[in-house]
This record gives sequence, structure tokens and C-alpha cells, in this order.
Amino acid sequence: MTQNRTHTCGELRMEHVGQTVTLAGFLENVREVGQNFAFLVLRDFYGTTQVVIETEDMMNVVNPLNKESTIRVTGVVRERDSKNPKLPTGDIEVVPTEIKVLGRCRHNELPFQINRSREADETARLKYRYLDLRNPAVKQNIILRSNVVAALRASMIDHGFMEITTPILTASSPEGARDYLVPSRKHPGKFYALPQAPQQFKQLLMASGFDKYFQIAPCFRDEDARGDRSPGEFYQLDMEMAFADQEDVFAVLEDVLPPIFAKYGTYNVASSAPFQRIPYLEAMEKYGTDKPDLRIDLTVQDATEVLAGCGFGPFEGNTVKAVPVTNFTATRKQIDKLCADVEVQSGQKAYWFRLDEKGEIVGGIAKFVQPIKDAVIAALNLQPNTFVGLTAGKKLAAQKTAGVLLKQVAALAPEHFDKERYEFCWIVDFPMYEMGEESGELEFCHNPFSMPNGGLEILKQAAAGQVDPLTITAFQYDLVCNGVELSSGAVRNHDPEIMIEAFQLVRLGEDDVKAKFPAMYNAFTYGAPPHAGIAPGVDRMVMLLAGEDSIREIIPFPMNKNAQDLMMGAPSFVEPKQLDELNIVCTKKEEETAE
Amino acid sequence: MTQNRTHTCGELRMEHVGQTVTLAGFLENVREVGQNFAFLVLRDFYGTTQVVIETEDMMNVVNPLNKESTIRVTGVVRERDSKNPKLPTGDIEVVPTEIKVLGRCRHNELPFQINRSREADETARLKYRYLDLRNPAVKQNIILRSNVVAALRASMIDHGFMEITTPILTASSPEGARDYLVPSRKHPGKFYALPQAPQQFKQLLMASGFDKYFQIAPCFRDEDARGDRSPGEFYQLDMEMAFADQEDVFAVLEDVLPPIFAKYGTYNVASSAPFQRIPYLEAMEKYGTDKPDLRIDLTVQDATEVLAGCGFGPFEGNTVKAVPVTNFTATRKQIDKLCADVEVQSGQKAYWFRLDEKGEIVGGIAKFVQPIKDAVIAALNLQPNTFVGLTAGKKLAAQKTAGVLLKQVAALAPEHFDKERYEFCWIVDFPMYEMGEESGELEFCHNPFSMPNGGLEILKQAAAGQVDPLTITAFQYDLVCNGVELSSGAVRNHDPEIMIEAFQLVRLGEDDVKAKFPAMYNAFTYGAPPHAGIAPGVDRMVMLLAGEDSIREIIPFPMNKNAQDLMMGAPSFVEPKQLDELNIVCTKKEEETAE
Repeated sequence: MTQNRTHTCGELRMEHVGQTVTLAGFLENVREVGQNFAFLVLRDFYGTTQVVIETEDMMNVVNPLNKESTIRVTGVVRERDSKNPKLPTGDIEVVPTEIKVLGRCRHNELPFQINRSREADETARLKYRYLDLRNPAVKQNIILRSNVVAALRASMIDHGFMEITTPILTASSPEGARDYLVPSRKHPGKFYALPQAPQQFKQLLMASGFDKYFQIAPCFRDEDARGDRSPGEFYQLDMEMAFADQEDVFAVLEDVLPPIFAKYGTYNVASSAPFQRIPYLEAMEKYGTDKPDLRIDLTVQDATEVLAGCGFGPFEGNTVKAVPVTNFTATRKQIDKLCADVEVQSGQKAYWFRLDEKGEIVGGIAKFVQPIKDAVIAALNLQPNTFVGLTAGKKLAAQKTAGVLLKQVAALAPEHFDKERYEFCWIVDFPMYEMGEESGELEFCHNPFSMPNGGLEILKQAAAGQVDPLTITAFQYDLVCNGVELSSGAVRNHDPEIMIEAFQLVRLGEDDVKAKFPAMYNAFTYGAPPHAGIAPGVDRMVMLLAGEDSIREIIPFPMNKNAQDLMMGAPSFVEPKQLDELNIVCTKKEEETAE
Repeated sequence: MTQNRTHTCGELRMEHVGQTVTLAGFLENVREVGQNFAFLVLRDFYGTTQVVIETEDMMNVVNPLNKESTIRVTGVVRERDSKNPKLPTGDIEVVPTEIKVLGRCRHNELPFQINRSREADETARLKYRYLDLRNPAVKQNIILRSNVVAALRASMIDHGFMEITTPILTASSPEGARDYLVPSRKHPGKFYALPQAPQQFKQLLMASGFDKYFQIAPCFRDEDARGDRSPGEFYQLDMEMAFADQEDVFAVLEDVLPPIFAKYGTYNVASSAPFQRIPYLEAMEKYGTDKPDLRIDLTVQDATEVLAGCGFGPFEGNTVKAVPVTNFTATRKQIDKLCADVEVQSGQKAYWFRLDEKGEIVGGIAKFVQPIKDAVIAALNLQPNTFVGLTAGKKLAAQKTAGVLLKQVAALAPEHFDKERYEFCWIVDFPMYEMGEESGELEFCHNPFSMPNGGLEILKQAAAGQVDPLTITAFQYDLVCNGVELSSGAVRNHDPEIMIEAFQLVRLGEDDVKAKFPAMYNAFTYGAPPHAGIAPGVDRMVMLLAGEDSIREIIPFPMNKNAQDLMMGAPSFVEPKQLDELNIVCTKKEEETAE
């Protein structure tokens, strides 16, 4: 046996004219243009090549074939009469001397047209994913994903990181999302769990003396689907560094990500190091969100002092936030829709006025603003021809609504929204504690296992009443790109003494610390290096790079929103014997529905 | 905050003498040699550095510290008086001006001595794996694994392969090993299964138009542990090529594996392309196994004609196999043990005689051989001073026992066993069918989904009685290295028509084909390229390279033989609420045993 082809379908050029070649691929199309005269498009992974049928013999081979059959074509490369400059192989065509059928497509009708599969019903696409993936536009996302993952790996290794694979069958964890469980055959009544993330393992690797760890890590959360979250598994670029702090982690990703985003992204510009570092409270104040989209050059301004008492009811006694937009050209209809959209998304009303070309306050709540016009112009530093979006409420609500308003208004203000690039930033200085809304008592704000800024000392001062615990920040950080949170990370609390002190502030003790992550806690009592890490989501990064809104477009074989693999028929009923061996019985059985 | 260190513990050389540096690491050892005078060994991932305590202040910091605490040392690099040429940093030492405790080890006693952890009880090692891994000798295997996997990936990408990640939550498969099942929350009574291998997905990728696929793929089989098989998960270098045949697959691995084996292996010599191809029947005849260790230059010879009738009872009417070994110097005691070992391993007796230096037949069954001495010497082409091991029985049993004998005898014959290299070979031409021992009817021999050599035509001839189906071989192959089977692979049967014909020969039909792999069968009816692949085991390769006999030595966090992760406490009991959500109950509950 020898290889089935001499060239791929993307390879032939003018220089090959006159050569006898063998190609193999899918019969994408046959266009009969006359008696024993047809153009055939042969497609493989690398491209398409035109094959010209000119004889009865060849026509007899091709005629009975359904589209999408695989064939092998041997023939001579010939210069085309009319070239196709859009096609890499558009200068040539192949005149066959032999056509052999390799894999006959038995179906005269396909569930959808291959090259238009993206328009097909998603259920059909997922059931016939192997046909959907033959569409070059669909396949391209999978190639992109593979290239991005390979580039991330190569760059991490270049940066001195070592990829270590951590277990997939592990122990159920008491917090976080819902675990996928795996019944143990040898230990009746006990279960493995698939890891929600390799968080504990990577910290245990640090305690084991590894230095720079990374892993393209599969993670599993049994949560319902969302646009950017697939049921089942997802992947993250998990990393952790020993004897490192926040700046060390930042330096790595600031070096690793921008070149990959610029090379593989829909846009070819990405922030360069250092990324902006924005304290959490500043982000909330300035952008109304901890996921700011820095491609937008608008900011939120505080207008409480100048507007709360203007007489407009909703502002009375509230925080008022303003988003001024210069040279805003939206129509009145667009503005009304904007305000409606903000209300739908945030649950809070948005208001507005304009400072027109002549310097007059018009529109929206103009009649309340007009009397204090000069003060407002001065306070918000307004120029003529500026739209001002407004929100009001308790501080956090006014901020968040302004954040929603800012994003919505940016979509109508291309001058303020330079879309064609990737803008990264770090959100830093997250508060360690917050006042629980329900409990009214001090609670952990985000991750109780992050290192507080100030360490043991500041916690002791807080315990002694010398420091307000609400002012303590954690070495915790979010990586945000174009308004999408790619990951949270932290300098970890590696010191049992500091852990216990941190827990005592929220009325918990050593037992609570140990109960959460016993292996990690035990490991830390044997001496551990300070360490820090992060885990940017691979799926989210690839979505950003591909410019896709559905996560299913960037996964080779995705489940549907209902957590089913329609192609493989998963999940499925299994043999009673299998359940017997696992010592489990099902208490409920889904009705089989016709597909 | 800034990075905790200026250099690693493996980095300092003479050129750094006089510099002030900061190191961070684990306090491996403190050797007090006088009043306020001690040598301290600081260890990090990269190496160890000697720190010399010469002041009371520094002594006061170090004195209360338990070993394995992490510390940060700032000091001046000084040339050593007595250098240690075995240590990369052995020319220098660091005289500290500041020592800071980063992570205090609370334990005065460790479960085992770090640098001698390999001698500790395995249960303790696995429970405190984070301490075990601090042992550089243990860690080295994990580094090796990481490097080998990275090298495999890089080489596969260089060869034009694309890594594609296939689902981990998928459907249970009706054959093969036992599946790990995952109850579905949203579909009561139904289960996902973890893939035993991505076999179906990679073939579906071929049907999807991908061309050269690979994946370092996690695989899951709920089988009991063995020396070379961990319970739970294992990894394979899974690959598949479209429009390719056996030789294409061989060419890739013959190019990818040898440089990696030579670079990372205990031995630095590996076979170069092409690897020997040995037909299955020839391997059985010549080596008594389909996993020959080609580092051994001994072969099995057929001695039936010359010895079956020699009068020695066990040879009567049986096949007799001989393994001649020139210049064999083993003692009589060693030979007796050899024969006993062969019987234990194979369940069959081994016999022997020697042709001594003077050309006389002596020892073992000499008295039966002596009378036909000249015929035996001629038939087996014996030289003086040759040991001849013998086995007898039905053909296959005699072959297999001779194979065991050959390996055992090689261990006593260093002249015939050049251990320090990696010898690869391909076993090819596996029979497609065999006569079932129980059924007495024709059955598939190995994989029913491999392509028969001769395709549809030969199957039709067999069905018509023109060809003996037992003579049909499959395009199926094993990759063997040093007597270890790394993988089976095959040119797949991608044609439903040929599948059905192949199944009909063993009295099965299209429904049986479809029932086994419905998604794959459906996909193939839409036209698929011919394709071939293989999936060498990563764990087995790393074991070979590391020279380790236990698979647990080359896995970062292995389960024990009883399928438990002693460090994480997996598997474990879970909250009743978790089982309620999954609509399952346990019918049996393991007793909790004290650890």
C-alpha cells in the first residue's frame, strides 16, 4: 500500500502544470456544463481543487456518485482558461485519467447543505456534527482553537513553565458549583468527583516543590448552560508560580497573551505590557463594572452633588451617576430604546439630557437641569453637543446601572468605541471582607483563601479593632479583556496561621479551614512557598479570538444546551448489570422522547 | 511587592561571587558545626545551595525552624573553601545578612525522610505525596513525564498534526473494558461515561474532514490495577490520519519516537527508521511472543522433526521448540531456577541440554538427545559450548513457553542481551479471524473494525468458499519496544459495505455493526476517507524511559492499587442532597475504616 495522494487539495499552483498528480478528498460539488463535460470540486482539509471531466469514461464514474463521497483523482495539472484569483488553487485544474471511489456517500439528500450549515437548525448541526464540521467556516474555529492552545502551551514552556497533568477522578469538594459524581465500584456508596478546577492540585504542587506549573486543564461543573458556558467540560489555562507575587503573575500573562491575541484574533491589535491595573473600587466608580471594556473611551462621573437636589424625584436623596458622550448623533428613537434596554438589563431606569450645539440643555430631564445649567456644565466639564446619560439609586445600584448605560451608549457612539482591538486590564485590590446583606455581619467578599494585603499583621489589627476590616484588600485580581472576565487569580494564603486569623474575623475557626480543603491545609502545615496564580478560560479566549457568541462554535463536539451529545446519544440508559456493579439504583427514569 | 528571589537555588556559580543575592526555598538540612556556625542546605525546584550561618543573629532565626520550612535568604555569594564538584552550585556558598521565614513547617517529625522517601511505605508516600514529591529523585520522573509529553506534542505538530480535544463526558460503549459512569442530573436514569479511548471521536474527526489528528488523550477504564496500569485514568498519544495507510502511520512514529527515546531515556540509543516489521505468525514462531524484545539476539527454533521422536515422553506427538544460547555460563542452580521460573510464568515445563566445550551432549535431557546427537547438532546448527532450552506441547503452547524461556534465559546471558537501548518493531499481518475455542466457529480475532487486507474482494471470496477466512489478515499492527506493547493500531474499516461483509462471515449483520458504534456507522454512510491510526500509551512510554516498574512512579498524584487517592480522600461519601439531585440511591455502603 502507498499513500493515497501526491498532493493535498490546497497545494497545486502554476508550477505544477504538466505534472501527473493524485488528490483525494470529498466530492463537494459537480456542475455538469455539457455532454461529458463537468466541473467537479474536490475538497480536503487543506483546500479545494477543480477537476474537469471531459470524457465519457470519467463521467460514468462520477455520475452515480452522491455529493460528499470521498474519491481519489489521478490526473494532469493544467492551467485554467479562466482563473479564480479568490482560490489559492484557482490558477489550475486537474484533468483526470483515473477516479476511484474511496468512501461512497449513501445519501442523495444531506441534512443540510455543507457550506451553509451555519444556517441550519442547531439540533441537526449537532446530531450531524461530522457533516457540519466539513463546512470550512465551522472547521476554521476548531483549527483556531487548536492553534491557540498550541501557541499558549509553547509560550508557557518558553516562559519556564512545566505542564503537569492533575487527576480527573478526584474527591468531591464541599463548595463551589455542583460536582459531577462518579460512583466507585470498589468502594460501595462512595464517589469520585470530576474536578471543578485543579485549584487544590496546583497548590499541592507548589507545596510539593514545583516552581512554575501550568496545564490546559479540563474542568467540570454540573451547571446549566449559558452562552459562554457549555454544560459539562470546559478548559482553562491553569497556572501557578512558587515564591511569586501578583506582579510576577501579571508579567507572565502580559507577555504570553498579547502576541497570541494579535496573531490569532479577529483583530490584530492587542494591549502591550503593562496592562492597566484598576483597583476594584475605582473600576466600579469609573466604569460601573469590574469588567470594563477599555475599547470604549467613556467613563462614569459622579453627579450626586450637582444633581441630587435638582428637584427630579428619582434623584432625591440618591447617588446620581452621569455618562457624558461628546458628538453623540443618535436619534430620539435610539435614545428611547437605549433607556429601555438599560432598564431591562439592570432593572433600573436611565435618564438623559443633551447639551446641544448652541450650549442649551435639551431633551429628557432638561427642565430640571436647565435651572442649574452652569453648575452642571462645570461639574461634568461638558462641551456643547454632548449627550449625558444618567442613573440614580443607592451607590452600588447607580454605579452598576451607569456601567450598563455606558456599554449600551457606546454601541451607538462609534467615535468612542474602537472595536478592532483587544484591550486587557487587571482589576486589583478586591476587598477581603464585606458586610453580608442578609446577615448584617462581616463575611468573606470573594475567595477566603487569598492572601490579605498586610498579611497576619493587618488581620490582627482588625481583630483588635484598630483597623476597619472592610478596608482590608486581598491580593486577588481579575483579568479582563474587552469587557469579558477571562479569569480570577490570587496570591494564595499559604500560611495556616494567617488562614485561621482570617477565618476568625468572620467567626470561623481552624476546623472550618480544614474542613474545606483538608489535603491542602495539611500540606501547608509542612511548610509551603508563597505562591500565586490564575487560570484564564480557554473557551472564552477562543470565543473572543474567533468573534463567536456561542461557545458551541468553538468546541469540536459540543453538547447542546440541554447537556446532551446528540451525535453520540449521551447521556443514555445503561445495562442494569453496570448499575449493579456500582451498587446504585435510579429512583426516576426520564421518558424516552423521539428525536 | 516584588519577586521573592534574585536567583534560584541551582543558579549560582563562581561568576556570582561577591554579589548580594536573594534565594528562596525549602530548608532541607541544618548541620551545626560549632557555636553560631552551621551549614544550611536550601532546596528549590532547580537545585540546592549551601548557606553558611556565622552569626548569632542568623543562628537565632534558623534554630527554631523545623526542616522543610520555606525561607528567604539574602546574602553575599562567597567562594567555598572546600568545593563540592558533584553539586552544580558546589563552588560557592551564601553568607546571609537576612533570613525570613516564608512558610513554617509545624512538624518536628516528618512521615519519612524526604531524600529517602522512595524507601518509605507506599501508603505513607501517597498520603503525603506533597512531601514525597519534594524528593528530587521522585520529582525527576514527573519532570521527565512533562518533558516527554511536551516533546511528543512538539514533534507531532512539526509533522503536520493538529491536537484536537475530544469530549470527556460521553456515551457508554457496549464493549471493551468497564466504563466509569456519571449520572446525569438533567436526564434522570441516564448516564454519561468517561471515554475508554477517543477511538470513535477520532474516527468521527476523519469523517468530519480533519486530516492529521493527535491528542494526548485521557482515557478511563474501571479495571483493577496492575503494575503498568493505574486504576482510573491513563494517557495515550492518540493519532489518526485521513487518506493514509499502514506505512504512513509507521513513517510518522518512526520519525517521532526514536529521537525522544534517545534524548529522554535511561538509554540514549533507539532504533532508527524503518523499524523491523514482523508478521504476527513469524513473531510467534521466531520469538514465541507477539511482543519480542529485540535487544535479545536469541530466537526460537523448531525442533519438532528432530526431537519429537527422541523418546523423551513430554515430546512425544508434540511440537518441540528450542532456544539455543551460545557461550552460556549459568550454573546448574541458575538453570534449575530458570526452568522453575518458566513453569511458574507459562504453566508449562521447560527442559534443556548443553553441547559442552568438547562437543558432548550433557545435562538435562542429554540421555535422550545423545543417541541422535549429530542430527540435533545439524538441525539446530549448534556450536560447542551451547545451552539449548526446550519446550513442548501443542504448537501455540510450545511457542509461548519458548517465548518465556527466551526472555528468562536472556537475563542470564548478557552477551545476548544488549540492554542499554530502545529496540522498536512493528508486529503486522494479524489474522482477521480465528476459530473460536469454545464456539468452534469462525470469530473475529482482534478488532472487527480493522480493514481486511484484500478489502471487499477477499471477504466475498471467503464467503463464496474460494478463500479460507483464516488466511485473511487485517491491516492491524502493534508497536513494541523492548518487549513492551506500546499500542495497537489499524487501518480502519471506513466502508459500511465492507463492514457488513466482514460481519456476515461471523454470522452477524448490519444491525450488529450499527449497534456497536451507531454514530460512527452513521457518519461512514455519508462518505468517509480511508484512515489509519494508533495510540501509544504515554504512561508505558514514560515508564520505559524512566526505567520504572511501577506506574505510580511516573504519575504526579496516583491512586493506590485499591483505586483510592489517599491524599485527597477519594472516593468519598457525598451529601445526600447530591444523590437526590442525581436521582440515585446507593444499595450498599462501605464500612469506614480507620486510615
